[in-house]
Amino acid sequence: MKAIAVDLGGTNIKAAIVDKEQGILEQISTPTNADLGLDYLLNRIGDTIKELIGRHEIIGIGVGLPGMVNLGQTIVRNPPNLPGWEEVHAAEEISKRTNLPCRIENDANVAALGSLHFGEGRNFDNFVVITLGTGVGGGIIINKKLYKGSKGMAGELGHMIIDYHGPYSNSVTRGTLESYLGQRFLSRFATDLIMQHPKNILYKKFHKNLEKLEPVDLTNAANEGNELAIEILKKSGERLGYAIINYTHILDIRKYVLSGGVAKAGDWLFNPAREIIKKHMMLPFREGLEIVYENLGNDGALLGAAGLAFDSFA
Amino acid sequence: MKAIAVDLGGTNIKAAIVDKEQGILEQISTPTNADLGLDYLLNRIGDTIKELIGRHEIIGIGVGLPGMVNLGQTIVRNPPNLPGWEEVHAAEEISKRTNLPCRIENDANVAALGSLHFGEGRNFDNFVVITLGTGVGGGIIINKKLYKGSKGMAGELGHMIIDYHGPYSNSVTRGTLESYLGQRFLSRFATDLIMQHPKNILYKKFHKNLEKLEPVDLTNAANEGNELAIEILKKSGERLGYAIINYTHILDIRKYVLSGGVAKAGDWLFNPAREIIKKHMMLPFREGLEIVYENLGNDGALLGAAGLAFDSFA
Repeated sequence: MKAIAVDLGGTNIKAAIVDKEQGILEQISTPTNADLGLDYLLNRIGDTIKELIGRHEIIGIGVGLPGMVNLGQTIVRNPPNLPGWEEVHAAEEISKRTNLPCRIENDANVAALGSLHFGEGRNFDNFVVITLGTGVGGGIIINKKLYKGSKGMAGELGHMIIDYHGPYSNSVTRGTLESYLGQRFLSRFATDLIMQHPKNILYKKFHKNLEKLEPVDLTNAANEGNELAIEILKKSGERLGYAIINYTHILDIRKYVLSGGVAKAGDWLFNPAREIIKKHMMLPFREGLEIVYENLGNDGALLGAAGLAFDSFA
Repeated sequence: MKAIAVDLGGTNIKAAIVDKEQGILEQISTPTNADLGLDYLLNRIGDTIKELIGRHEIIGIGVGLPGMVNLGQTIVRNPPNLPGWEEVHAAEEISKRTNLPCRIENDANVAALGSLHFGEGRNFDNFVVITLGTGVGGGIIINKKLYKGSKGMAGELGHMIIDYHGPYSNSVTRGTLESYLGQRFLSRFATDLIMQHPKNILYKKFHKNLEKLEPVDLTNAANEGNELAIEILKKSGERLGYAIINYTHILDIRKYVLSGGVAKAGDWLFNPAREIIKKHMMLPFREGLEIVYENLGNDGALLGAAGLAFDSFA
């Protein structure tokens, strides 16, 4: 069984033919050029898909994109990075151009579907994917299905408040998981500490260009035994732990799949989270609790978009 | 359609015949006497039920009790206040004694079912019941069904951390909604503030017997215009607001039904929560958000237990 997967980003449109068993068979990438307008973009998506189909038998199209998607997985509202898309019936428009059925979904939810169909989530009936990237997002899978909530917006995991006195992550939310673990907030937290430790190698490397410090530099330094980097990741992992306690106490879901760039820190982040969970989660909820790293990497988005098509049309 | 409802508390067993349309038709109460042992208690429940049945046609029995109940709603583990109940197949035992099918459920979830079948929840497909009592608990209703999670323990709303530096509510959890809004924690928070205001009438009334201060005294004082009481309830309502933001961002559920003694403070508590929500909840999630008071009062537990039977056997 094969589907067309589309990953619609602010910079590039990626599209692929994905086989349910074998994964990505073929993929192409083309610039998004959002400034050329909606019609241009939709046509471009349609052409890219038609180019891919070739002689393949395709059950349908799944599209991952930023923004809020309705319960029916057809309409997107106000996608960031795609100016002018106020409310677009994207699934219908893409269907019209390709003669194939189409469903769309928010990219954080698509990451969860990628894990469900092709990644760590294959092992679990109920799990939460937390994506630690530029922002912090995620998706909730209940009984092997995406949980969408009453209006389609469920799973804004990054907006979980763990300290209501905490720092703002945007003009509205504060003290949220994203306020601490979002890439630029984590970098900021790190640079503040690094500037207080002028003898540390991280100070020497970055004090003249603090804006260059990325979470991966912390992971690398931690791997080399740098105590300060380990401490920064520990504190961040603890904050992740508090958020996971909150998800678990509400949802009673015990499996957490971590993806995104910051998650590459792995156990430097996860072990402190596990310690906090041991301390502050109610005992019966800890049974079977697991935090695992999702290894799909950049393919996760396309694989998840294909998963959306398999779930919708198979 | 009629069911038998049982509310098994640490002090009393209440049982009732409940009609799906007319509510409670008849009820009796008898002491729990948990110290006389499990068999005695189960027999007592059985006898109480048989006494009620009389000539009524009953579809089944629903029981609300403290403790953790399995996904199948038949087995309870470690109920607080009922010592010796490590793991009891309560539904089966009660069925055996009454020749009627039986399901059991945790009392916080039963409160949610009461609201769903007989209270404010009748108006909503998706809602969260938050019970502000001695402890803080609740239940989650998704598509008019109780959400139980992967192991049956979902909806521990009181354990929502809103400040991970915050005060402990037991040896494990800290900075949770219960740490602030649980009855004794709220009273403690209030007395700390009252002792700093020796001119306030609350000081005069309570400074010699602080342990007597109950949330209802704050509500009464607020109703009389007491600024300090209003401030205490405001601060508490704000904390409720942060927790509701967290539930909403995860679950995308917009309707909150508040029950329990502390909730009687009503808008003194809810308006500050609404203000915090306006400030710190992501805009699209605020659409249709409602916080309402559940008026079922003490009947809620029996009505919810009946609802459990209707859901299970109708």
